[in-house]
Amino acid sequence: MLDQSTICAIATSPGMGAIATIRLSGEKAIEIADSVFQSPNKAKKLAAQPANTLHFGTISEGHELIDEVVVALFRAPHSFTGEDVVEISCHGSVYIQQRLLQLLVTKGARLARPGEFTQRAFLNGKMDLSQAEAVADLIASTTRASQKMAMNQMRGGFSNELSRLRAKMLHFIAMIELELDFSEEDVEFADRSQLKQLVDEIEAVVRKLKDSFRLGNVLKNGVPVAIVGETNVGKSTLLNALLNEEKAIVSDIHGTTRDVIEDVINIGGTAFRFFDTAGIRETADRIETMGIERTYHKLEQAEIVLLVTDLMNPTDLILKRIQKIRKRITNQCLIIVGNKADVADREKISELVDCVQLGENEDLVFISAKKRQNLDSLIGLLKENAHLNEPGTDDVIVSNIRHFEALTNAHQAIDRVQKGLEQHISGDFLAQDIRECMYFIGEITGEISTDEILGHIFKNFCIGK
Amino acid sequence: MLDQSTICAIATSPGMGAIATIRLSGEKAIEIADSVFQSPNKAKKLAAQPANTLHFGTISEGHELIDEVVVALFRAPHSFTGEDVVEISCHGSVYIQQRLLQLLVTKGARLARPGEFTQRAFLNGKMDLSQAEAVADLIASTTRASQKMAMNQMRGGFSNELSRLRAKMLHFIAMIELELDFSEEDVEFADRSQLKQLVDEIEAVVRKLKDSFRLGNVLKNGVPVAIVGETNVGKSTLLNALLNEEKAIVSDIHGTTRDVIEDVINIGGTAFRFFDTAGIRETADRIETMGIERTYHKLEQAEIVLLVTDLMNPTDLILKRIQKIRKRITNQCLIIVGNKADVADREKISELVDCVQLGENEDLVFISAKKRQNLDSLIGLLKENAHLNEPGTDDVIVSNIRHFEALTNAHQAIDRVQKGLEQHISGDFLAQDIRECMYFIGEITGEISTDEILGHIFKNFCIGK
Repeated sequence: MLDQSTICAIATSPGMGAIATIRLSGEKAIEIADSVFQSPNKAKKLAAQPANTLHFGTISEGHELIDEVVVALFRAPHSFTGEDVVEISCHGSVYIQQRLLQLLVTKGARLARPGEFTQRAFLNGKMDLSQAEAVADLIASTTRASQKMAMNQMRGGFSNELSRLRAKMLHFIAMIELELDFSEEDVEFADRSQLKQLVDEIEAVVRKLKDSFRLGNVLKNGVPVAIVGETNVGKSTLLNALLNEEKAIVSDIHGTTRDVIEDVINIGGTAFRFFDTAGIRETADRIETMGIERTYHKLEQAEIVLLVTDLMNPTDLILKRIQKIRKRITNQCLIIVGNKADVADREKISELVDCVQLGENEDLVFISAKKRQNLDSLIGLLKENAHLNEPGTDDVIVSNIRHFEALTNAHQAIDRVQKGLEQHISGDFLAQDIRECMYFIGEITGEISTDEILGHIFKNFCIGK
Repeated sequence: MLDQSTICAIATSPGMGAIATIRLSGEKAIEIADSVFQSPNKAKKLAAQPANTLHFGTISEGHELIDEVVVALFRAPHSFTGEDVVEISCHGSVYIQQRLLQLLVTKGARLARPGEFTQRAFLNGKMDLSQAEAVADLIASTTRASQKMAMNQMRGGFSNELSRLRAKMLHFIAMIELELDFSEEDVEFADRSQLKQLVDEIEAVVRKLKDSFRLGNVLKNGVPVAIVGETNVGKSTLLNALLNEEKAIVSDIHGTTRDVIEDVINIGGTAFRFFDTAGIRETADRIETMGIERTYHKLEQAEIVLLVTDLMNPTDLILKRIQKIRKRITNQCLIIVGNKADVADREKISELVDCVQLGENEDLVFISAKKRQNLDSLIGLLKENAHLNEPGTDDVIVSNIRHFEALTNAHQAIDRVQKGLEQHISGDFLAQDIRECMYFIGEITGEISTDEILGHIFKNFCIGK
């Protein structure tokens, strides 16, 4: 059931700015705005103004002037939420923002919950659920790739792909039902090979979407890069150098493992998520089992392992360390970084090059993190090993774990249909599995949704969206 | 000379939000926006749209879609800057904001300098200089009082007062000139008593404005409260308790003295600027001269001194501490806080009340910072001793140090006129001083201004305003 209340929130980034925008949506949005807004032309009422217009004026509480504002007026259904919407642009003082919000509440609006504007857009049929979710991804996007992916999803690329899939499944069900109708006559309208071909097509589409999640996840959250190396080999200096080199958008993400702080660095449009694996100790026979195991577990989550070594150390020690890491690496690629190349002997470097014997997924690069020498080569290797082909504008890539889970469930259902066909089980059982598959796909678009699912999805949005 | 370039900046608070606004102002604002904006109705061009309208569409760079946006269109002179202005509301991703900004720059806009939009509003005659400065104050306002004061200044209350003053001064000069014209005839048109009355009036207005700075400064920056007391008496706990009590807007301000970090707490609409005076040591004969002197210097800057004492200490020790602080206090009021009242003896408290013998500007209050007991009484005392009558809507209060300095200079000039009248010096000397007075007043409104002064004023604005 649609909540009819009028909601309000600060829609711009929190804190002080030149201007800030407060958004008001719902049946009484315009009425509430009119109750606090005064145009210099006293007689002017927002309620009498056409949609998509801007109005300068003041907002007062009683006789007290709070701010000079510009009000933007949108009318249902031609607004973001599909409801009447008023956006008030005020001076970006934190005090004024709060004061206006409080004033709107006293006039009958309610503070919006996180994502509630977008939720209303979904409930009012302005977008399907996967598009609504893309709004949050778009706002959180920090790279060209993640922005492109979210934009494509928001613009309906993903939804179109799902509706193509749905059409295939409906076709399958139609064929099965036709067969059932004529079952007494022992006619096989939907001959088995035709059905099999159709199911294989459906399976291929579901699998393609499901498999795109690896790329989608990496594009959204960054290519995971584990940095290993002893203390004092220059790991932090290297990270800082990469940051400076790229004038990057950086954020500290507290990883899901809680004990790691990750640095996300945008390198040429691709986010790399660097995490430091503090403790692979070399000296100890007494193995600090837990610490080491945790470190190795993190290695497994990486796509790229960056082993930072100090060229001032003896060559055999460096080689030992390389060997040690190699043992723990499964299918990640390994980039060995020889740091402090600015002060190391030329001969030492040649010796290392000769002795190291690089494997197939391995690279060796010499840099000076401190002097920022040869960082370009390292960045080149990172990009090369990220194995990311930037998605085309029309590529549909799944980046949302909820969608991935739904697709995994859908794929299992399809798998049962494929097996069922081989085992010649009856058509109505096959149709049931296809319907289950459609159910899971419906969860993605929101055709199938519960308040609980919606609540879970939108609670992670920011307030004001 | 007016800079004709088209400028752009992110106008909303930096960082991620639901939406963000990018502002574009100048002759080519609409043309530049049209070069990147596409309406769903392909033929629609912003250049052909009426002023004060909103337009939904997309922004692309080449074939690459960057975002879905809403564009607000303002036309000169009916905009904030007085120029053509386009405001682009996009999704509040940091990446998208930066990307759009870069795109506008490649299309011919220039990144705006801090305050440049407001500077253009001033240069285009949309507001005088004191009003432009009020825009920055308004954005920075954190309390009802500071917001009210800035709003009054922005709406021209201060400017009206100054133009009234200017009229008085012109009248004076007219009288003097009349007298000079007829000087050979030895007629005193402007008889001295009339002149004196007029100068006294001018002096009174200038003095009233100048004197309002104390209040204005306190309203803008907070009532300075020095917290003194030994370590472990609960000073930080008290500050935190006040913060929580008031769910306050808090900020850390690095004081001009650099070595103090100040907490600004908004208590019932008034900002109090608490600064901790770390080191008044009791034990030492060996006086740590410098530290102590610095502490006492800070005491002098306070309007209120908050002496926090630990009721678990012996009464005579507490009394000694009170005596010690009393000696250093000049005309500030002193609030003695007996902390840890929740665990102290009733008798101890009675004893202290009997012995302490409060002076005229002194108060004594017992609290528990930890248990948050009786904080209301303390807050009441703080408010009472702040001696702040909240300004009326029409009160003109000077809160800008640049204005205060100009008024101080103006007042000195007026003072010379008053003295000159007493000493019967000639009219043209008097007129010269009055002209000087007008010059200083002109500095406030910006009638007298240089690029250097303007640069200095606007460089402290945020970008986007």
